[in-house]
Amino acid sequence: MGNLLVLQSGGPTAVINSSLAGVIKCGFDNPQKIDKVYGALNGIEGAEQERLVLLDNFKDNKNLELLKQTPASYLGSCRKKLPKVSEDDGTYKRLFDVFEKNNIEYIFCIGGNDSMDTTDKLSKYCAENGKDIKVVGIPKTIDNDLVLTDHTPGYGSAAKFVANCMRQIALDTDVYQMPSVVVLEAMGRNAGWLTASAALANDENCQGTDIICLPERAVEKDALLAKVELISKSKKTIMIAVSEGIRDKNGNYIKENQKQGGGHDKFGHAALGGAGKTVEAWIAAELGFKTRSIELSTLQRCFASGAALCDVEEAFLAGYKGVGFALDGMSGVMAGFKRLADKPYRMEVVPMPVCEIANKEKAIPDDMISADGFGMTQKFLDYALPLIEGEPNLVYKNGVLQFAR
Amino acid sequence: MGNLLVLQSGGPTAVINSSLAGVIKCGFDNPQKIDKVYGALNGIEGAEQERLVLLDNFKDNKNLELLKQTPASYLGSCRKKLPKVSEDDGTYKRLFDVFEKNNIEYIFCIGGNDSMDTTDKLSKYCAENGKDIKVVGIPKTIDNDLVLTDHTPGYGSAAKFVANCMRQIALDTDVYQMPSVVVLEAMGRNAGWLTASAALANDENCQGTDIICLPERAVEKDALLAKVELISKSKKTIMIAVSEGIRDKNGNYIKENQKQGGGHDKFGHAALGGAGKTVEAWIAAELGFKTRSIELSTLQRCFASGAALCDVEEAFLAGYKGVGFALDGMSGVMAGFKRLADKPYRMEVVPMPVCEIANKEKAIPDDMISADGFGMTQKFLDYALPLIEGEPNLVYKNGVLQFAR
Repeated sequence: MGNLLVLQSGGPTAVINSSLAGVIKCGFDNPQKIDKVYGALNGIEGAEQERLVLLDNFKDNKNLELLKQTPASYLGSCRKKLPKVSEDDGTYKRLFDVFEKNNIEYIFCIGGNDSMDTTDKLSKYCAENGKDIKVVGIPKTIDNDLVLTDHTPGYGSAAKFVANCMRQIALDTDVYQMPSVVVLEAMGRNAGWLTASAALANDENCQGTDIICLPERAVEKDALLAKVELISKSKKTIMIAVSEGIRDKNGNYIKENQKQGGGHDKFGHAALGGAGKTVEAWIAAELGFKTRSIELSTLQRCFASGAALCDVEEAFLAGYKGVGFALDGMSGVMAGFKRLADKPYRMEVVPMPVCEIANKEKAIPDDMISADGFGMTQKFLDYALPLIEGEPNLVYKNGVLQFAR
Repeated sequence: MGNLLVLQSGGPTAVINSSLAGVIKCGFDNPQKIDKVYGALNGIEGAEQERLVLLDNFKDNKNLELLKQTPASYLGSCRKKLPKVSEDDGTYKRLFDVFEKNNIEYIFCIGGNDSMDTTDKLSKYCAENGKDIKVVGIPKTIDNDLVLTDHTPGYGSAAKFVANCMRQIALDTDVYQMPSVVVLEAMGRNAGWLTASAALANDENCQGTDIICLPERAVEKDALLAKVELISKSKKTIMIAVSEGIRDKNGNYIKENQKQGGGHDKFGHAALGGAGKTVEAWIAAELGFKTRSIELSTLQRCFASGAALCDVEEAFLAGYKGVGFALDGMSGVMAGFKRLADKPYRMEVVPMPVCEIANKEKAIPDDMISADGFGMTQKFLDYALPLIEGEPNLVYKNGVLQFAR
């Protein structure tokens, strides 16, 4: 009989708290094995500082339901990367002092690539030092760039937001008689999954997206301008989605200039910005079209008002099943998604070895990108469509989305 | 027995097509008086070019319902301003040739300030030249700056989007341990109504907005920085909403620089941009906080996925009742809103003289702005809250909002 500790890290998503709700619920559902359910504030940083909170406020089912629609990390986040044990075992000693003092037997890290690194290091430390603590990762990232898993919780809702923005901006832009171009910049450093979701904006009543520029393909100015010019012969409004991480053929980021206070973050990722503005300037200057660029900024990852039901439910399931894996004795695994079918869509949550996931990135495969590199194939549409399906029954009060206490 | 002509102009909103649906529906509901229901493409510009379309596709009720949730101007828009008759009566001759050729007896202009000018000029021309055509204005603007009417269709949905964005971005920003500031820039040249709606983001579970900067008050850098510093003593994340049109005490716009290709539009409005970026730079440079600015751009006016039910219904009602006014023989009026009560909220649609509305702007009254100029009073909250209430039952397919054919 021990306690459960859950932590969240990395950038927030619209559904990361739905995974938290899943972890908490499964904790409460197993009182014979789990005594108390704790959360660490600000991820592993808070764990090290013993900033733990009891999550008994979620025994109130209504509050737990609200947690599922509360965007961003309820427990706070961090971007701390654990050192290698060989370089600094003091951090591990402090952490495990906290874990043991609080009788923690199960640890759940909800996060992306870097959080899986934390999961991996903690579980290996346990194995190598005879600590009987199960450590399980719960995936989360709008980037959808984790390997092994079919997709990641958070992606569907962000993708749905991008697709719906493209459609609605397309209508807004099309109202005047003059030709115009919109360049929407979506997040995605090395993997263009989120930008690619703009392809879901098209149907028989609305062409929401005409061109997609991904980090997976070198973006050549001349080729892009030629494509815009070609489309402009038959269409008044041209909608372009670009990833923040698009690069030229030499691998250099296409962006106006380094962001203020930019440089690199703690994980060595370059601070990006301005890909949309750069493409806007190209088109306005070279082709003379009225052009506007729009940065979705943090909205694309936190807009729970527009979440996908599929995503909310799967995020919860990942958390719930992840606890089940730990209770079954597993450690060093991530609750990953295995797709069983596209139409009708079915998937199951299975344990995946976290050591094979940490520090890797999954780019969009070639057969999901169109031959000219400026669009997505049917294979991508079949893959992504089920993930944005469904609209959750959200609780509003006084016109605003309600959050958990 | 004559025909009806409806046109839309100015910037789109999330519900301008709901007003169009109201006009069309009332047209269809009065077959003894109205024969055909036409729309002019691209407003008065399209009318002059006789680009009229029959709107019989909306006899399909399902399609009419979809029109209510289709953002942006279904008929297209324009920014053409009618000349004075004394300066150029050729335009009027061409227009009335088109109207008479098509047996138009009723004209409805859905739009903002400038469209009410069109309504005013057309109705006066009729009166002065013995033309038996009734011309009625249907209000539309996210800016909420029309005089006489309590508020305008389009405002509630845009306000709801701003409030919900502030709340969700506040949670997203609050996840890390370091202090940080977000500056969200909302539309509004001279009237700060939309920015003010950020005040609706606050409740007991979320402080979505801390500071509001309006065009109605000179924004002094020192006073703003002092306010930010004061709040930072008790709060880690500071959320600021600024209008694009904020000015210093000398009346100069606060903005990074004139927008590319900026200058002034056809109506003499200065092209604005960069108020948020400027305030971001002030705070980052002088106070050293991590600061991010976000421009909601066109999303704030076209995001029908987050529309307010109250707004959708009122927009429809304005269109429907406006046709009724014309059928009752009125001309040169706007279907305005008269508030009967705040709690519970009740209003009625009444005819208002369009000559008193055109070319005027309604700023936020003093008693709705807090003493220090950085917040809103309870009076504003009581005024604005009913307008963002309710969530429409939207039709989605394949994860994306559906639009009218």
